[in-house]
Amino acid sequence: MPMKRISYKNIASPKGFQATGIHCGLKHKKKDLALLISEVPASVAGVFTTNAIKAAPLLVTKDVVYQTGKMQAIIINAGNANACTGKQGMTDAYAMQKLTAEKFGIANNLVGVASTGVIGEIMKMEPVTNGIQQLEPIDELEGAISFSQAIMTTDTVTKNTSYQTIIDGKEVIIAGTAKGSGMIEPNMATMLGFITTDANIESSHLQTALTSITDITFNAITVDGDTSTNDMVIVMANGLAENKTLTPDHPDWEDFIQTLHAVAQDLAKMIAKDGEGATKLIEVEVKGAISNAEARKIAKTVVGSPLVKTAVFGNDANWGRIIAAVGYSGATLDPYAITIHIGVTKVVENGEPVPFSEKDLIVYLKQPEVKIFVDIHQGNGQGTAWGCDLTYDYVQINATYRS
Amino acid sequence: MPMKRISYKNIASPKGFQATGIHCGLKHKKKDLALLISEVPASVAGVFTTNAIKAAPLLVTKDVVYQTGKMQAIIINAGNANACTGKQGMTDAYAMQKLTAEKFGIANNLVGVASTGVIGEIMKMEPVTNGIQQLEPIDELEGAISFSQAIMTTDTVTKNTSYQTIIDGKEVIIAGTAKGSGMIEPNMATMLGFITTDANIESSHLQTALTSITDITFNAITVDGDTSTNDMVIVMANGLAENKTLTPDHPDWEDFIQTLHAVAQDLAKMIAKDGEGATKLIEVEVKGAISNAEARKIAKTVVGSPLVKTAVFGNDANWGRIIAAVGYSGATLDPYAITIHIGVTKVVENGEPVPFSEKDLIVYLKQPEVKIFVDIHQGNGQGTAWGCDLTYDYVQINATYRS
Repeated sequence: MPMKRISYKNIASPKGFQATGIHCGLKHKKKDLALLISEVPASVAGVFTTNAIKAAPLLVTKDVVYQTGKMQAIIINAGNANACTGKQGMTDAYAMQKLTAEKFGIANNLVGVASTGVIGEIMKMEPVTNGIQQLEPIDELEGAISFSQAIMTTDTVTKNTSYQTIIDGKEVIIAGTAKGSGMIEPNMATMLGFITTDANIESSHLQTALTSITDITFNAITVDGDTSTNDMVIVMANGLAENKTLTPDHPDWEDFIQTLHAVAQDLAKMIAKDGEGATKLIEVEVKGAISNAEARKIAKTVVGSPLVKTAVFGNDANWGRIIAAVGYSGATLDPYAITIHIGVTKVVENGEPVPFSEKDLIVYLKQPEVKIFVDIHQGNGQGTAWGCDLTYDYVQINATYRS
Repeated sequence: MPMKRISYKNIASPKGFQATGIHCGLKHKKKDLALLISEVPASVAGVFTTNAIKAAPLLVTKDVVYQTGKMQAIIINAGNANACTGKQGMTDAYAMQKLTAEKFGIANNLVGVASTGVIGEIMKMEPVTNGIQQLEPIDELEGAISFSQAIMTTDTVTKNTSYQTIIDGKEVIIAGTAKGSGMIEPNMATMLGFITTDANIESSHLQTALTSITDITFNAITVDGDTSTNDMVIVMANGLAENKTLTPDHPDWEDFIQTLHAVAQDLAKMIAKDGEGATKLIEVEVKGAISNAEARKIAKTVVGSPLVKTAVFGNDANWGRIIAAVGYSGATLDPYAITIHIGVTKVVENGEPVPFSEKDLIVYLKQPEVKIFVDIHQGNGQGTAWGCDLTYDYVQINATYRS
């Protein structure tokens, strides 16, 4: 049965999951401490930042994912990244893990930790310690909403999505929430993603699924080219839907992958659209590359070009900047075999300008979602990347972040 | 004898060189057509954009540099890049070459052509054709100034430098001028550089010298990470200083290299400082990498980070963004062996925060030149890169470039 999107479901909807988010005091007023918990230990998969500088909580969570192979709860704070904080940072991250484990009566090594915020400041642990005691997760929409609020930094909107599918005749829900709006690229920077499902699947297969999907979703977005020290996407699958365990040989495996892909892609696009200061989502679709990887490389180069981003912000059909970005992407190409469309309007054919109505394109560029199509006619590789425009507000947000 | 900088000398100062710049009509009012010419054919070296999409004039000039191996004159227009203009673009670039050759009575294949401006618009050739007839180059400061004005696009200042040295007891002058302020990185994007000297040197050795120097000067600057279709640096050496021909075995070879390096570095820093919308020059010096190339990679990654650039604009000593950029540079490093200074203030040691006076650093960050020092303690590699802050004006300039 094909998956369907169910807008009123959330990360607390898969059987046995609960969530909450509260204000503990790391931020002035906003919620800043979140918890996601499963009734039983869940299979877990994770992808983590490729930055050589990794935050303390990320190291703790990596151990849960790769050593324990199961996760039952994850505690997240916003306002402080607990990165570049040395031994004290590790002590604090382990304390968050232990306090959460004690509060909910589970083993330390089943608790993940995530942090987001300013780099290089030692955590204020008193509000966190007190906050953990006050957490009361629930399996209702309210819990999921407060969770998604408490993980935000410069995000302007919460990011949630959920789908339902049928596996072995059992209803399975996959839901996700994410935060992230600056410092996003490549490879998921200052981005946190949490996906829950009641599907029954081993951690190793879940990891395979997540890794393959990450390349074409979370790793295909870019906001400003910076990669953070704290990023992770975690999937927890607690098996309470009671389907026969999913493996690549299971008849519904593809359906599960598609549903997980849909969740990840929704979250990725939401993050790109909510890029710091952004007014528009930009989608770049590339065809005709010699491989899918090269197509994605071109797409990411175009969507990451500051000159393309400012042109889109200014409603300027400056395709010269698009083709210049294609040119410096490093992909194999023939300058005289490039076709570019902005929306449905062809602006370049065989690498040369095509007459078009600038007026019509300005109308198109004023839409909240701008699509750019590039065909380089070299092969069958295709790929898509998402980003946002570069605006005065991006500069304003980042020139004054700590003030 | 060591070189010395001579501020009143210019690209028309080396013996036998003349320059001029006029308004021909590609721009509304500003100068837009420039010529540099030598009394005799000069040895020539060039470095060109690595963008796969190359503008027509660049292809014409590459042939002069690599096929003819000599250059006597170069004609430059601003206002139109003559890029992505197909066969008509090539016809127009050849026409500029031929008209210039005819006007000054020299062979076509001794004339270079360069263009800068909007990509993808067919050149208006009538103003260019008429303009070439009006060019009257002179060997005085006035000629060099009008030249440097006529090659500008969004540049806010002209960029000139000159040095004198003694080779075989003969006075040799090396002088340069450049334009470029947006779309600069990596590998010299929308940047034009012209260096003249009366030194006597074969083209092949001149090329060796230029190539080695380019890596640590023009290729070590970044404004917004975009690479243009039109960039080139040309060095013309006409031999009229009458020194014995320079080769790597010549006793004054190192002196020549140092002088050429000084000219190239001055121009590179001027370009970085005049980055679109910039208020400050940022210099990042990296030590302790496993190679000079890795040190330069780290330096360029830090100076190119939009988050570092906006923090410097906002006078925010946000060293977390610096260390995060070091981390995602891809260089070999140990997170616990990183030291960072902003100016003379140590902010990170062993990868951890060091207490410092935020107030003093704000005063430092308000200076027009901000220096960041990174030592990663892995080896002896060192390198420096230059860039600028990211400001509201950058967005404004690029959101409305064609309006």
